Amino acid sequence: MSDVSRVKALAFDVFGTTVDWCSGVAREAKGMLAPKGYSLDWLAFANRWRREYQPAMEKVRSGSRGYVILDALHREMLEPVLAEYRIEGLSAADKQELAFAWRKLDPWPDVLKGMERLKRKYTLIALSNGNIALISAMAKRAGIPWDVVLGAELVKQYKPRGEVYDSAAALLSLENPEVMMVACHIWDLDGAKARGLKTGYVRRAAEYGPAPAPKPPAPGTYDLQVADFGELAYALGPSF
Amino acid sequence: MSDVSRVKALAFDVFGTTVDWCSGVAREAKGMLAPKGYSLDWLAFANRWRREYQPAMEKVRSGSRGYVILDALHREMLEPVLAEYRIEGLSAADKQELAFAWRKLDPWPDVLKGMERLKRKYTLIALSNGNIALISAMAKRAGIPWDVVLGAELVKQYKPRGEVYDSAAALLSLENPEVMMVACHIWDLDGAKARGLKTGYVRRAAEYGPAPAPKPPAPGTYDLQVADFGELAYALGPSF
Repeated sequence: MSDVSRVKALAFDVFGTTVDWCSGVAREAKGMLAPKGYSLDWLAFANRWRREYQPAMEKVRSGSRGYVILDALHREMLEPVLAEYRIEGLSAADKQELAFAWRKLDPWPDVLKGMERLKRKYTLIALSNGNIALISAMAKRAGIPWDVVLGAELVKQYKPRGEVYDSAAALLSLENPEVMMVACHIWDLDGAKARGLKTGYVRRAAEYGPAPAPKPPAPGTYDLQVADFGELAYALGPSF
Repeated sequence: MSDVSRVKALAFDVFGTTVDWCSGVAREAKGMLAPKGYSLDWLAFANRWRREYQPAMEKVRSGSRGYVILDALHREMLEPVLAEYRIEGLSAADKQELAFAWRKLDPWPDVLKGMERLKRKYTLIALSNGNIALISAMAKRAGIPWDVVLGAELVKQYKPRGEVYDSAAALLSLENPEVMMVACHIWDLDGAKARGLKTGYVRRAAEYGPAPAPKPPAPGTYDLQVADFGELAYALGPSF
């Protein structure tokens, strides 16, 4: 294990790493659309919606459009998915409520207990591409005990752009190596590593539901590589 | 009572309203300086230090200097106070530790219980002139259950400048009247009111320790006027 003794704050990715978006979005979509007579593979629907995520953010990252909060992107991303599934007749209010499915996601089973332990020693930062209203509404519903909710919105850019990682350390008056990015996505960890943050990979093999899990990184790619937040607390906890 | 039924989030002032800075700073100053042989009126020392607060922020508000975080202002503000009290021989590390007294303040006795009730219904925002590192470190030590820590730093200006109040509502995707500013200082509430936020005055007659308390506002000046956070929870809680 790489030296992580200087780490004072943990910056967590949220979608996939902290919460299970696939089953949550599937549940919310089913809750709205099944009573209207639709019968879909709801997990596939959630995955299809999520496939719009990187291209939507890429327009902001590349500068081809200005910064737009993720709540608004989720709403936009829904349109081509509804069209593809031939889901028609939803009101504007229905579509907005459906887009807020992304605010109603549950933590993985290991998350709350692991965070409770980690919170005793570290500042727990939400460092998501989700905007603050989205992440704080989700946390309130799910009981996620963030110390601070930062993220993409504060620098009006999206991860893995470097300014998002830099901002987390700067807003806590810390040096970048005093912050560990915790994520299940290698593109996020690589972005953090490039800015000098420490990195903790968490395996979330069920992120995409029944769809195949991405290959895990080779051992030693990141400072820590763990199976869940319990292991993360164990690995970071000897001086508890 | 004015109509506050649209309020979804409470934006709290911190120094004076949520925490007792006077006795906390006095305690920390005594803890460092008494062992070095100094014997002062520690509460008067704290009040003297705090008198540098508005002039220090005014330089930023007026544009005569760029934005500097409050942690750094606290450190700067200490110098004339030490000189006036003829306190000499402190190392740079001592002075930094003393400036961090402002991170080690306790909530008033009604605060944690009142916030626990309010948190069930409202998003609790720290909307302080303190920077995020300062306010989150204080919250961690004292167990203050903020949902989000926002404040002056995110717009690089100081209250009562309007952009600080506007930013709180915007970052939560709320309209200004959906946010209530809660404070014991009329300059802060007047700033919030001017931007269309709802306002809740909390009486903190002991803010300055033994020094005289400012006159409370006339009844009806703000949407709510209460004696402490317990009354605030009662006044805002009928639909709990």
